[in-house]
Amino acid sequence: MASKEPLIITGKEEMRRWSRAARAEGKSIALVPTMGYLHQGHLTLIRESLRYAEAIVVSIYVNPGQFSPTEDLSTYPSDFVGDIRKLRSISGAGVDVVFHPKDLYGYGRSNSSKIDENRSEGEVVSCVEKSGNGHETWVRVERLEKGLCGKSRPVFFRGVATIVAKLFNIVEPDVAVFGKKDYQQWRIIQRMVRDLDFGIKVVGTEIVRDDDGLAKSSRNVRLSPEERAKALSISKSLFSAKLAAEKGQVNCQELINSVAQSITKAGGKVDYAEIVDQENLDLVKEIKSPAVFCVAAWFGNVRLIDNMEINI
Amino acid sequence: MASKEPLIITGKEEMRRWSRAARAEGKSIALVPTMGYLHQGHLTLIRESLRYAEAIVVSIYVNPGQFSPTEDLSTYPSDFVGDIRKLRSISGAGVDVVFHPKDLYGYGRSNSSKIDENRSEGEVVSCVEKSGNGHETWVRVERLEKGLCGKSRPVFFRGVATIVAKLFNIVEPDVAVFGKKDYQQWRIIQRMVRDLDFGIKVVGTEIVRDDDGLAKSSRNVRLSPEERAKALSISKSLFSAKLAAEKGQVNCQELINSVAQSITKAGGKVDYAEIVDQENLDLVKEIKSPAVFCVAAWFGNVRLIDNMEINI
Repeated sequence: MASKEPLIITGKEEMRRWSRAARAEGKSIALVPTMGYLHQGHLTLIRESLRYAEAIVVSIYVNPGQFSPTEDLSTYPSDFVGDIRKLRSISGAGVDVVFHPKDLYGYGRSNSSKIDENRSEGEVVSCVEKSGNGHETWVRVERLEKGLCGKSRPVFFRGVATIVAKLFNIVEPDVAVFGKKDYQQWRIIQRMVRDLDFGIKVVGTEIVRDDDGLAKSSRNVRLSPEERAKALSISKSLFSAKLAAEKGQVNCQELINSVAQSITKAGGKVDYAEIVDQENLDLVKEIKSPAVFCVAAWFGNVRLIDNMEINI
Repeated sequence: MASKEPLIITGKEEMRRWSRAARAEGKSIALVPTMGYLHQGHLTLIRESLRYAEAIVVSIYVNPGQFSPTEDLSTYPSDFVGDIRKLRSISGAGVDVVFHPKDLYGYGRSNSSKIDENRSEGEVVSCVEKSGNGHETWVRVERLEKGLCGKSRPVFFRGVATIVAKLFNIVEPDVAVFGKKDYQQWRIIQRMVRDLDFGIKVVGTEIVRDDDGLAKSSRNVRLSPEERAKALSISKSLFSAKLAAEKGQVNCQELINSVAQSITKAGGKVDYAEIVDQENLDLVKEIKSPAVFCVAAWFGNVRLIDNMEINI
């Protein structure tokens, strides 16, 4: 089947007009939000979205609202031309629109982007904090955002929930597709959609892995070949843990010790290794119901995440 | 013109279906969110909304999310039958739908409504805090929510922004109409709509007053005749302040002292009396640009608010 040339839209109003026109024609719309630098994981996500809607919008926007000033916003990889080439290569119905806005936090009359000096001690700060008339509205999913990645990245999920709410309001999709590699993010978006009554179905797609098991990530390109080999300890130990649990080893502390030791032994630095309830993300001590084993670990300067659902 | 019998809808999904059908017919939709116990101020708001859209939805829902456990949720006045009678009396195009949901914070599988025991010290608590799978997503407009009413009611604007976001997502209106009597609320909703990119126009309508100047409020019924007479000191002193400012008295502290003294002398207890920028709600010392004089004061057990725009 011939590939499709996606329409590139950069303006919010134009995007909304396009969506409303598509809906008026009776088409359902799926949104796949990304930060670009697309890899096979994204392309799988997009192919999956074709099952749920007649029109596909892929957004490409590196969201400053989810980075703290000390994180890697400025070095986050990007390759818009390559991304478009990859999107074109999707066979079948393909991608209709690439929504690629320049700035989603500027509103014309805003003040400078200087940090608000009246900020209270302890407040979280992202790369878009502004004073005066600047952006100041944030969506918080208060319990789910606390654990796992939320511990070391206090600004992250507030920024993710907020940008996704913005994209939902601009694109007005019927379905939104997220990867379960970002498991906590996926659950937070689901919860936000439920709690704020968005008329949108949230779909989570399975993790895509390289042949050797490493979960696909835009950040993988920053790993040296040596670091990459060591990083396989994450997925390998997670697969072993899943197998052990299915064979009856349901004590979480023992499963966690085993995974953490494997990663540490390989030279990685564990940020967290936790087994939590699949829906609430509450810590579990013994696996009696659907759980998910979530890991974040550093190899060199790269922080990788991975997870494994354990359905008992 | 004959009056119209509004359709009463209680379910979220039915409400969204109705709106989407109306939009598919090419009708624009206005939403007027209320907590019921309608008075002339609401009816003026609703008549105003007829100027902006072809289909009018009035929501009636006392939102527990904006009350703290120590506030007057349980005694908030309600009269659904009387409300419907008043809505029927609106001549002309009239109200199409009354959206009257029973509970907007229950999601079927939620846990009990007990307060989350893992809450951190100092976190704000409303009447809908839940643990486990209960509601946990809140929209915060971080700078605008801090001053004025936000000081004595820390849970209030978080609850207002969140319920309005929910209603926006359920009703999917083109226009939403708010009264400028709740000035800070109106500005917060405008800011939320801008920051979260809702495709909705927010309209503010002027304060409606009794003949003697008292701003209409559902809470006025709780004033004794004596308290009501004393409460006139609020609007009287605000009108005087506006006149004085227009004549060149632009020093805010002097204007504030004068209003505060009038209210105190009449037997009221001032919660706040502040002159702020109309858009940012930043305190101003001298009126050089459009400002608004905002007052909250207690008469007996009733807390009243009022405000006066001063356009210099």
